[in-house]
Amino acid sequence: MGAPGGICTIAVDAMGSDHGPTEFIRGLLYATEELELDCNFTLVGKGRLLERLLKVRKLHIDPARIQIHHASEVVTMQDKPIQALRKKKDSSMAQAIELLRDGKAQALVSCGNTGALMAGGTLRMRPLDGVDRPALGIIIPSKLKPFVLIDVGANPESTPLNLMQNAVLGANYAKAALGIEKPRVALLTIGTEEGKGNSLINATHAYLQTIHEKVIYYAGPIEGFQLFDGAVDVVVCDGFVGNIVLKSSEALFGFIGATMKEELVRNPKRILGAALSKSAFRDMKVRLSPDQHAGAPLLGLKGNILKSHGSSNYIAIANALRIAQELVKHDMIDSISSEINQANDLI
Amino acid sequence: MGAPGGICTIAVDAMGSDHGPTEFIRGLLYATEELELDCNFTLVGKGRLLERLLKVRKLHIDPARIQIHHASEVVTMQDKPIQALRKKKDSSMAQAIELLRDGKAQALVSCGNTGALMAGGTLRMRPLDGVDRPALGIIIPSKLKPFVLIDVGANPESTPLNLMQNAVLGANYAKAALGIEKPRVALLTIGTEEGKGNSLINATHAYLQTIHEKVIYYAGPIEGFQLFDGAVDVVVCDGFVGNIVLKSSEALFGFIGATMKEELVRNPKRILGAALSKSAFRDMKVRLSPDQHAGAPLLGLKGNILKSHGSSNYIAIANALRIAQELVKHDMIDSISSEINQANDLI
Repeated sequence: MGAPGGICTIAVDAMGSDHGPTEFIRGLLYATEELELDCNFTLVGKGRLLERLLKVRKLHIDPARIQIHHASEVVTMQDKPIQALRKKKDSSMAQAIELLRDGKAQALVSCGNTGALMAGGTLRMRPLDGVDRPALGIIIPSKLKPFVLIDVGANPESTPLNLMQNAVLGANYAKAALGIEKPRVALLTIGTEEGKGNSLINATHAYLQTIHEKVIYYAGPIEGFQLFDGAVDVVVCDGFVGNIVLKSSEALFGFIGATMKEELVRNPKRILGAALSKSAFRDMKVRLSPDQHAGAPLLGLKGNILKSHGSSNYIAIANALRIAQELVKHDMIDSISSEINQANDLI
Repeated sequence: MGAPGGICTIAVDAMGSDHGPTEFIRGLLYATEELELDCNFTLVGKGRLLERLLKVRKLHIDPARIQIHHASEVVTMQDKPIQALRKKKDSSMAQAIELLRDGKAQALVSCGNTGALMAGGTLRMRPLDGVDRPALGIIIPSKLKPFVLIDVGANPESTPLNLMQNAVLGANYAKAALGIEKPRVALLTIGTEEGKGNSLINATHAYLQTIHEKVIYYAGPIEGFQLFDGAVDVVVCDGFVGNIVLKSSEALFGFIGATMKEELVRNPKRILGAALSKSAFRDMKVRLSPDQHAGAPLLGLKGNILKSHGSSNYIAIANALRIAQELVKHDMIDSISSEINQANDLI
């Protein structure tokens, strides 16, 4: 899937971020200078604005590596998913998807409207042969090491086949993005005894046992209390459960942080203490932050589409670009295509 | 449902705690002296052990308020749910359920094996007429005020009817345990636009709109990121989702705490800072701890059965006893019985 000479191109929907295109340009700078990405970039969005921003920033890389592709419209967070790309054909998101579809880019990164990106990406890029429903994977920090949670919202009504395919998609994502050779895959459930959980889980468990050691490495079911242990590399769930777990975890993290702040400024002694241990809170935030692994790919399509959080800062954006490059370099789509068919044949 | 003279009796399965019966006796002391509970208690478990523990502790309450009911066996965490109570008929859990069934107690509190308590409780007490499946409710702290999450694990395969009934059960629990006159009930989903979520959620949403203002106050759907806002009093979900959200939240809380501790002892400056702000961490823990509202009732049965966490400390146990007394004083079961039938008639 790579472009000639091993160099690939990433299409960047530069308009979707909550922080505007400036943050994307900063992300690009960080990606090329600090993370040393060696791919090309096509920035999609308002041409003159992007040109001006690039001039101000002065990137120390070969100008030939950065193209600008003008798009006059922007998909907003208020736009309805399916209508958005139909009505806004000259939006940065729609145009970036076209670049991917036409083979002018090998991956796409966007911070824009998730629903529009998923709907547009699925309609234009189509699922790979054998893939029933695409799934959103995301990398989450844990006690030991980061892991992939899949699906976090693409498919809220899953069948056992969907969940089995999520396992294959997630394992391939862990290989490409985390560099794990044999990812251990677990199934998220309640009560890990045989027969607990529900009928969806029990049927999926049987499928995963069938493809174990043939396509993926199935470590068995895990419960919610084990989620942040880091004992496995991929945790499979349906998009309804995964989305709620992801978003409620983000909310809980914010709630704990806000409560801590309130308590730490309650009297002068606490304020002094907090000032002395300030660096600990900063380091903790870095360790628990998803910035290193930002960018959730919509897996199972005929193209690499990564969604980055609307509020992503430049480090998160740079890391999404880094992951996009990894997916291309690992030929993840080819690998998914072959393993999905192997898995389908086994069940 | 109250005993003569307004005084009720709580049956206490004193053997199931991870900390042994001592913690239960401490909890009883705290409940009567600090929380000023005025009900009677029947402690169920090894008679001579309980008598000895009571003598050591010297409770300053009328001895007539505490009875001991001897039971020679203990249900362990390893016992299989349904077999446990069938095989261990003289266990403290089975005997406590019998006291409730025979009307010798109006509520039961246990820290024991959740599965055994749910299976035994459901089999012996039976669901109320009109209740399709009982549900576990739990009170969770949030930014503004605590709220009820229901179901957190009793029914992992729910129908729209089950979820609608969870709304009625949860609202009644919020009234009795939190003292909220008109609890606002929300439905947990992903994407709150009409038609998002999944078919279970869409059908439930319609049911809840139908019973809104007639039986409960339906505030609409909420997403995971809103879970800890505290804008509503009851959040309805199925037992699979609720159990995973509850347990993964506990796990995340532990993970954040562990990371914070590691960072705070990394150098002398941080250690000094942490020592100065120690009280802030203690107060934060108290605010975020579920001890004040410990005890998850199995709602929808013909008896008040409260499950307390196996690792509950005496404060959590005392609060579970307090909530048990509230449920009896509010005649929660009568109220549920009438409202479930109203709701069923509307749909």
